[in-house]
Amino acid sequence: MQHITLKVEGMTCGHCVSSVEGAVKNVGATGKVDLSAKTVQIQFDEGKLSLDKIKEAIEDQGYDVG
Amino acid sequence: MQHITLKVEGMTCGHCVSSVEGAVKNVGATGKVDLSAKTVQIQFDEGKLSLDKIKEAIEDQGYDVG
Repeated sequence: MQHITLKVEGMTCGHCVSSVEGAVKNVGATGKVDLSAKTVQIQFDEGKLSLDKIKEAIEDQGYDVG
Repeated sequence: MQHITLKVEGMTCGHCVSSVEGAVKNVGATGKVDLSAKTVQIQFDEGKLSLDKIKEAIEDQGYDVG
């Protein structure tokens, strides 16, 4: 299991937290957003899922992943 | 038909716009949020609906109505 923290720009409120965490979940990972730090902590199985796919899912919700 | 503009604090993003406009619609009025001005323009039938009910619906979404 891979643990990584991504910087995410554009999250402003609880709805944004839900969008980002939901997008991460939809691709089969788990994510926990820290809104004040503008980060999301990701856990995923690197044998089944690529980090690029997770980043893409977050970006598809309208946020920039640093 | 009554037209009124309410000040709404706490709206930060497009999700917030949808929440507020959706809450207004749910009670039978129409609302158009201006996110940068932090306002919502409301149209409602004062024979069928009170302004207090609209304010309450917005506040129930977690926003302060000024």
